[in-house]
Amino acid sequence: MTDPTLAAIFAHIERNADAFVARLIDYVRHPSISAQDVGIAEVAGMLLGMLERLGMAAELLPTRGHPMVLGRGPEVRGAPTVLLYGHYDVQPPEPLEAWTSPPFEPTLRDGRIYARGVGDNKGQHLAQLLAIESHLAVAGRLPCNVIVLLEGEEEVGSPHLAETVAAHADRLRADLVVTADGTLHPSGRGTILYGVRGVVHFELHVRTARRDTHSGNFGGVVPNALWALVHLLASMRGPDGRIAIGGLADPILPPGPAERAAVAALPLDLPALMAELGMRALDAPRDRPFWDRLMFHPTLTINGIAGGYAGPGSKTVLPAEAVAKCDIRLVEAMTPEQALAAVRAHVAAVAPGLGAEVEVLGTGGMLPSRTPMDTPFAPVLRAALTAARGEAPLEYPCMGGSLPDYVFTRTLGIPAFVTPYGNADEANHAPDENLAVDCFLAGIRSGAALLAGLGAMAEGGG
Amino acid sequence: MTDPTLAAIFAHIERNADAFVARLIDYVRHPSISAQDVGIAEVAGMLLGMLERLGMAAELLPTRGHPMVLGRGPEVRGAPTVLLYGHYDVQPPEPLEAWTSPPFEPTLRDGRIYARGVGDNKGQHLAQLLAIESHLAVAGRLPCNVIVLLEGEEEVGSPHLAETVAAHADRLRADLVVTADGTLHPSGRGTILYGVRGVVHFELHVRTARRDTHSGNFGGVVPNALWALVHLLASMRGPDGRIAIGGLADPILPPGPAERAAVAALPLDLPALMAELGMRALDAPRDRPFWDRLMFHPTLTINGIAGGYAGPGSKTVLPAEAVAKCDIRLVEAMTPEQALAAVRAHVAAVAPGLGAEVEVLGTGGMLPSRTPMDTPFAPVLRAALTAARGEAPLEYPCMGGSLPDYVFTRTLGIPAFVTPYGNADEANHAPDENLAVDCFLAGIRSGAALLAGLGAMAEGGG
Repeated sequence: MTDPTLAAIFAHIERNADAFVARLIDYVRHPSISAQDVGIAEVAGMLLGMLERLGMAAELLPTRGHPMVLGRGPEVRGAPTVLLYGHYDVQPPEPLEAWTSPPFEPTLRDGRIYARGVGDNKGQHLAQLLAIESHLAVAGRLPCNVIVLLEGEEEVGSPHLAETVAAHADRLRADLVVTADGTLHPSGRGTILYGVRGVVHFELHVRTARRDTHSGNFGGVVPNALWALVHLLASMRGPDGRIAIGGLADPILPPGPAERAAVAALPLDLPALMAELGMRALDAPRDRPFWDRLMFHPTLTINGIAGGYAGPGSKTVLPAEAVAKCDIRLVEAMTPEQALAAVRAHVAAVAPGLGAEVEVLGTGGMLPSRTPMDTPFAPVLRAALTAARGEAPLEYPCMGGSLPDYVFTRTLGIPAFVTPYGNADEANHAPDENLAVDCFLAGIRSGAALLAGLGAMAEGGG
Repeated sequence: MTDPTLAAIFAHIERNADAFVARLIDYVRHPSISAQDVGIAEVAGMLLGMLERLGMAAELLPTRGHPMVLGRGPEVRGAPTVLLYGHYDVQPPEPLEAWTSPPFEPTLRDGRIYARGVGDNKGQHLAQLLAIESHLAVAGRLPCNVIVLLEGEEEVGSPHLAETVAAHADRLRADLVVTADGTLHPSGRGTILYGVRGVVHFELHVRTARRDTHSGNFGGVVPNALWALVHLLASMRGPDGRIAIGGLADPILPPGPAERAAVAALPLDLPALMAELGMRALDAPRDRPFWDRLMFHPTLTINGIAGGYAGPGSKTVLPAEAVAKCDIRLVEAMTPEQALAAVRAHVAAVAPGLGAEVEVLGTGGMLPSRTPMDTPFAPVLRAALTAARGEAPLEYPCMGGSLPDYVFTRTLGIPAFVTPYGNADEANHAPDENLAVDCFLAGIRSGAALLAGLGAMAEGGG
């Protein structure tokens, strides 16, 4: 590390470690359960005070649901603007009896703080705020422009994030978005995620007759809704694992050289993973490289099927209706609307030949998001995490799951990064959620190094 | 009708109609619910008395469950022996509140008797006994040898019928079996059924991993149990409707000229049937003649599928296990064992390529049965039903459903016929079960004409 200011900030963080842990404990003592509407206003108010004490212009941004907390640091001319996104709401703590210590009585045990929300996401965005505070304490100023945006509805699916960001796009103008959420690699190495898959959920409702019939008296005469569903599904994705729905080309947007290089550097213990999950084989297509499966290809998953009688014993029923619930994970350039339209067109073409009426019911979705790895901010994040943690981070061009990053990359049109600070076993959404103190402090250092790095871009460029 | 004795018997039946109805009402007043073990011994005892009063050698035939009632008429040298099969147990009457009059308080309304078991099967085998009684009353003797066998476990699946008949095969030696059960054609025309499809029930239990995973984090990596099940099922029967399991050739035993002629004579209002059932199309293969579907081809029916999450809302689960319940209806020359073995071999060949472990669980079955339509007894039954009802019966080479007729055709090696006496809307197994008095009396006449016809075979041959 060559930056003496950053070295001084790291020393400040180390000196104040106990105080920072105490601050986190005080913060997570306050419930803010969005699903149960518990403590939201109180915690939003706490955050407003914290941002103001950091010298930020702070306000509550109303939404049609719980408010967001918005803060803006003093202007730093010529320096980039980073938007730090996080969420102050937490999951419900139930089942309470499964907690070793009560979820809202934070407890320090064996180097970890146990409390609901400590990892997801309070400890992670508090680390960002303490990084700002440490810059101010050591240098008296921030090295770059900072916007803080903390949502109160992430744990209920961010229903108003997209519209609120779109409505306030001018006030959220930034050069990049950094979200500290999720967990580090199990090895403890730092992590940068450049993208997420999108998703679209839909249901197939199949009907072949007015009522169920008897498999003896009508078997061979009345079309079976479960057979129609089986053949419809099989027409959508073959045993070779390839999606056969026209318009859902696979893959949609191939990775570039930077993505390929990043993927090649990712560690993978496939035999251990397969043993842990009890898998006999990877999903088809068999010859597809491991990470490509999660990052660069859409998937069509059957989440559930119900039809006929599947209880104890046997029942000679010939079912007249059946339902499948599915999701499609979307890779860059796909949209939920386009994918759902492709499904509808496919079903409309295939269903009549199966003697079935099929209704396709869209049940929500989210755009994918990908930030190109050759963005000039990538080296800054990489260097910041390396400085804060003593080793280069792992870099994922995309994660398999879905987050509303498109709100930043598409609505605001800026690169978005996720840099998780939590330990891999943080148990988010579960009893005994926890954050390792080491991870919390490394998170503060990471945030501080990121701000310093962004400031240095201005100096380097100025 | 040219037989003066039979004419006198028919007149006797008409004169005694009210008394016979009163006898039926008295009989069905006594519950004999096999599933609930209610009243079995009492009703078996009643039947023993009835058979003895007919001059038969009567006894209870013990089984590992409820006893059968066996009666044998006085020997008639040179005449054929008919075994009249029926069952004295009835379905549970629930839901009681859905009955217009209580199920065990028989009520005569609008020419029908309402009571549990009146159609299925007490009124039908009582008609056979009253046919015997009428012969004795008018002619003082029976025209042929008669064995009566009444089972007490038909409504719970006849679990001990096969072994009991096999154990007593020597005492049940007969030339043909006639079962009066089920319903007439909706037009009210008499009916002869020469065969039944067999059935084998099985379950497919699919597992692809140790636990369910997240469709984002593992979609494309972990094989999905529901996809494996879909592709496995699709490999067993294509969208063309043809069973693709090796060893289950389709059809197994083509019908002969007599069967073809009988089928051609059957009435069918296909548009009305399709409208009633709300079907858009007949099941695939589309070009298969209607009755062939139910009589001469096996079917593979998915009775039910369960896997993953199919409840309200969406859940991003990638299921690790799934189950399908299926049945195969078997046509003549197939056996449940052979069909199940073919399924097992097919699954063993296909499952590994799907990344799945699949367990095939056989859950019971029944052999098919077919009596050739060129048997010399066919004209006798045809003439008897014509004499009793004034119009020629409909003749079905096979019915789509399954009954344990193989016990007679295979174990005893004799032709078996089903001649239903009940009205098409008898509502068996349901509330307000009923038997039209006209059908009951026509049943008595049918039984009487049958015995007379069998007797005439001896005279004609002697």
